[in-house]
Amino acid sequence: MPDTLGEPRGEPLFSRLALIGMGLIGSSIARAARHLNLAGTVVAIDRDEETLARSAELGLADAFFKDAAEGVRDCDFVILCVPVGACGPLAKQIAGSLAHGAIVSDVGSVKGAVVAAMEPHLPAHTHFVPAHPVAGTERSGPDAGFATLFLNRWCILTPAYGVDAGAVEQVRAFWEAMGSRIEIMSAPHHDLVLAITSHVPHLIAYNIVGTAADMERVTELEVIKFSAGGFRDFTRIAASDPTMWRDIFLTNKEAVLEMISRFNEDLAALTRAIRWDDGDALFDLFSRTRTIRRGIISEGQETAEPDFGRRRPEE
Amino acid sequence: MPDTLGEPRGEPLFSRLALIGMGLIGSSIARAARHLNLAGTVVAIDRDEETLARSAELGLADAFFKDAAEGVRDCDFVILCVPVGACGPLAKQIAGSLAHGAIVSDVGSVKGAVVAAMEPHLPAHTHFVPAHPVAGTERSGPDAGFATLFLNRWCILTPAYGVDAGAVEQVRAFWEAMGSRIEIMSAPHHDLVLAITSHVPHLIAYNIVGTAADMERVTELEVIKFSAGGFRDFTRIAASDPTMWRDIFLTNKEAVLEMISRFNEDLAALTRAIRWDDGDALFDLFSRTRTIRRGIISEGQETAEPDFGRRRPEE
Repeated sequence: MPDTLGEPRGEPLFSRLALIGMGLIGSSIARAARHLNLAGTVVAIDRDEETLARSAELGLADAFFKDAAEGVRDCDFVILCVPVGACGPLAKQIAGSLAHGAIVSDVGSVKGAVVAAMEPHLPAHTHFVPAHPVAGTERSGPDAGFATLFLNRWCILTPAYGVDAGAVEQVRAFWEAMGSRIEIMSAPHHDLVLAITSHVPHLIAYNIVGTAADMERVTELEVIKFSAGGFRDFTRIAASDPTMWRDIFLTNKEAVLEMISRFNEDLAALTRAIRWDDGDALFDLFSRTRTIRRGIISEGQETAEPDFGRRRPEE
Repeated sequence: MPDTLGEPRGEPLFSRLALIGMGLIGSSIARAARHLNLAGTVVAIDRDEETLARSAELGLADAFFKDAAEGVRDCDFVILCVPVGACGPLAKQIAGSLAHGAIVSDVGSVKGAVVAAMEPHLPAHTHFVPAHPVAGTERSGPDAGFATLFLNRWCILTPAYGVDAGAVEQVRAFWEAMGSRIEIMSAPHHDLVLAITSHVPHLIAYNIVGTAADMERVTELEVIKFSAGGFRDFTRIAASDPTMWRDIFLTNKEAVLEMISRFNEDLAALTRAIRWDDGDALFDLFSRTRTIRRGIISEGQETAEPDFGRRRPEE
C-alpha cells in the first residue's frame, strides 16, 4: 500500500472547491487538495472567526469566508465538513447561492439523517453525493489536520438512486486522488456498519472513562497512574470532539440502540460465565477475537507493531 | 522522565535469580536483569520445551530448566511469571527446593487470589513479596519481551503485614533498577484498582469485538475495512493472551463483577439519554472524559501524539 501522496495533477479536478468547516477533516482536505492540485481555487469557510484566521495563517486556502452562502458562490464542488447536526441548516443557508451543476457533498459519520436533513434544501440543478471518509484522530481544529489523513483509509459514498453518475465519478476521483479507497453503499447500511465499527466503540469508551472517574474507592490519580494496564487505550477515542459525537448519537439513534442492545446481551453472557466459573467460555471468546485484529492489520487499517507502535524507550 | 535504562550495576542485587515462565514478562525481566547486571546468574525456567529452547537461542539466561523445583535451587530471588491460575500449584511444587532466606515474588495481575493460593505453600524461611508490574503489550512469548518494558511504568507491591522489610526493599530496588515506579498497597485495593483500569477494559474490548464478529447484517470484512472509525483501538487488547485473561477474570471475580455492574448502570443512563434526545447529558460526559486523557499523558503513561503515534504516512 502506498505510504505517500501521489504527484500533483497537471489539470485540477474542480475549478473552485468550497470547504465549509475548517476542523480536522476540512483542513486535511484543504491541505491535500492544494498539495495535489485537485482544485484551481480552494475556498475555506468557517463561521468561527478564530478558526478562519488560523486557517489563513496556515495558508490552507486561497480565499476565506465567514458567510457560507457567500463563500460557495461559483464553486463547482462544495463539501460540508461540520458536525452532522449542522448539515441540514447549512444546506438551507447555502441553497440559494449554489452554482448550476455544482456537486454538493459532506463528510458526516451518519448518512441517513444527514441525507434526510440536506436533500430537501438542495436545488434540482445540483448533484448531491454524500461521503464519509472513515479516518480521523482524537484531535480537532485546523492545526490538527494533515494531508495524508485519508491515505489508505476507506471513504464511503451513499448517493441516492438516480444521482448523476458523472458527479459520483468526480467525487470518487477526488477521494481516490487523496489516497482513499472507495466503497458505495446505501445510507441505512452505512449507518449500521458505522454503528458497530465506530459509534458504539466511542460510546463504550466514553462510558468506561466516565465510570472510572466516578469511583469513590479508587482515586482519579490511581486510575491515571495504572492506566497502562488497558484503560488508556479507551481514553484516546473518549477524547474526541464532544459536539461531533453528541450529534452522531442523536442522529444515528436507531442503529446505535440496536448495537448497544446486542453488546449488552453479549456482556450479560460473559458476566454470567465469570460468575459461574465457566473458564472455557471465556477462553473461547478470548481466542476468537484475536483473528479480527489480524484481519485489520493485513487489510492495512492498523499497524502491526505491538502497543500501536507507541513510542518505546530504547535499551 | 528517563527514556533509557540506566548503567549496569557494579555489584548485582541478587546472586541467583530464577524466572519461572519465559513469556512477555519473564523474558523482559531476563533481558533487563542481564543488561543491568541485577543478578549474578539468571535462571530461566519453562515447562514448555519450545519456549525454553527459544529462550536459550535468544541467550536470555545463564541456565535453563524445565523443572521448576530443580531450577529454583540455591536462588535468592524467585519470580513466578505465569498466568495467575498457575501460581498456587507452582508454589506448592517449588516449596521444598526454596533456599533459606529466598525472596519469592510474582507478576500476577490479580493479587488477592494469588496470595491466597501461594502463601500456604511457602516455607517460613522464605519472604513473599507479591508484585504486579502494570506494563505489557498484546504480544506473548519470549520473542515479545524487551528490556525497557517496565521503564516509567508502575509496579505495585502487596506484601502482607509483618513481611521482612529488607526483602521488600530489595524487591523495590530490583524494579526501580528496571525503571519502574513503585507503589505499595493492600491486595484487595490492588484488585479493585486493576478491575477498573485493566480488567473491565479488557472484558469490554473482548466483548465488543465478539459482538461485531457475530453480526449477520454486517460482514466481518466490513468490520475490518471500516475499523479505523474507532473499533480497531479495542482489538489491540482483545488480542491479548487468552489463558492469562481467563485466569484474571476467574480470580478477580468479585471486583470485576462490581465494576461491570457500575459500567452497566452508567451505560443504561447513557443509552436512555440517546433514546430521549438528551444532547446536554451526552455533551457533558463527552467533555468530562477529555481531562482524564490529559492526566494520563502528563503523568507519562501515554504518548501525547495523536492516534497513539501510529505510523503516519508522509505527504
